[in-house]
Amino acid sequence: MRSAVVLLSGGLDSATVLAMAQASGRRCHALTVDYGQRHVAEIEAARRVAAAGGVESHRLLHMDLRPIGGSALTDNCIAVPKFSADESTEHGKIPVTYVPARNTILLSVALGLAESIGAREIWCGVNSVDYSNYPDCRPEFIRAFHDLAKVATKAGVEGRRIIIKAPLIRMSKARIIRTGLDLGVDYSLTTSCYDPVEDGRSCGTCEACLLRRKGFRSAGAEDPAL
Amino acid sequence: MRSAVVLLSGGLDSATVLAMAQASGRRCHALTVDYGQRHVAEIEAARRVAAAGGVESHRLLHMDLRPIGGSALTDNCIAVPKFSADESTEHGKIPVTYVPARNTILLSVALGLAESIGAREIWCGVNSVDYSNYPDCRPEFIRAFHDLAKVATKAGVEGRRIIIKAPLIRMSKARIIRTGLDLGVDYSLTTSCYDPVEDGRSCGTCEACLLRRKGFRSAGAEDPAL
Repeated sequence: MRSAVVLLSGGLDSATVLAMAQASGRRCHALTVDYGQRHVAEIEAARRVAAAGGVESHRLLHMDLRPIGGSALTDNCIAVPKFSADESTEHGKIPVTYVPARNTILLSVALGLAESIGAREIWCGVNSVDYSNYPDCRPEFIRAFHDLAKVATKAGVEGRRIIIKAPLIRMSKARIIRTGLDLGVDYSLTTSCYDPVEDGRSCGTCEACLLRRKGFRSAGAEDPAL
Repeated sequence: MRSAVVLLSGGLDSATVLAMAQASGRRCHALTVDYGQRHVAEIEAARRVAAAGGVESHRLLHMDLRPIGGSALTDNCIAVPKFSADESTEHGKIPVTYVPARNTILLSVALGLAESIGAREIWCGVNSVDYSNYPDCRPEFIRAFHDLAKVATKAGVEGRRIIIKAPLIRMSKARIIRTGLDLGVDYSLTTSCYDPVEDGRSCGTCEACLLRRKGFRSAGAEDPAL
């Protein structure tokens, strides 16, 4: 059985990716990064998803990206934009919720873990269809990271490549949700909100909430987390 | 004046790189990462070097890589290899002091900072001549990261590339030291040891100490840190 590192954020995309990796017979080692994001509810969701998914291991890595700033998710002085239910976030711009180089950083630590435990794959939930125009969610980013992994690691030097798997990258949110439901993912364990209200519930009006709602609606399913 | 992020470890290579960046007129923003390394004396050295170098800013970022393990520098159960004064570490193998994906991780956070503050360059002290065969110190690694930075960032999408500068990559340790001395670097502020003894002094027998000693000897200079 092949071992895989699975980046697990606590959101619905990465929960789906974990289920896909498990279904394809991988021994999954989950990795969650607490990077100082304002939506710490994600971390608890990741714990629930990992436990429910029956992973081989789940590591929580602390990394404080707040000194870097530049994002509404890591700097409390920048507000998370809110939208009315009918508004679309798809305006082609990169919004202030973009965390500079976040996916590069997350894949880098996943690469370190894969190298350390001898895993040959990294699975991640990046998606470039129903997304927020983040540059590091696009196929060209994954390809470039793939090329980097080949020369950055001892494994690569020794001819054992570490592969980046991004199975959601060209899927709509609705298709992701249908795939997950078919695999038995319990989406009530996940959270997507960037700016939860005080009791931890989703705000319902940030772009992540909008994309999630649109996805469930298009999939013809109820969101069990609401 | 161009702004640059300079990765500053507290060792002699990055101190030299900072001096080179300053000498070429960059406004330097230093970034030091406390990643759970056993040689925390590095962090204090980085503070001294940044202060002496007159940087625009110096950020210390905490990131605990110990859950990833796989290296003598982040796992206290793996001993740092020791050598006698006449031994060479140059055996073509990647030693246990290699931290899986460390330079990928360090450049990633530097990329995040450069993106956040609008810097167009990242300067780092990687070197592939007098080094420990780490895969992520080679020119092909820097080239691959360069290509990644172009597609990973908002700056890259908008046509403003962030450049990775590794001016030491093909220099011998002796040449690095001579360059630094010419620029007035005070190497007494730096530390290179992977495994300092209890009072913080260098052990003198780890590979980093050996490479440093060899470098000063070849440069015909005294190591002021001894």
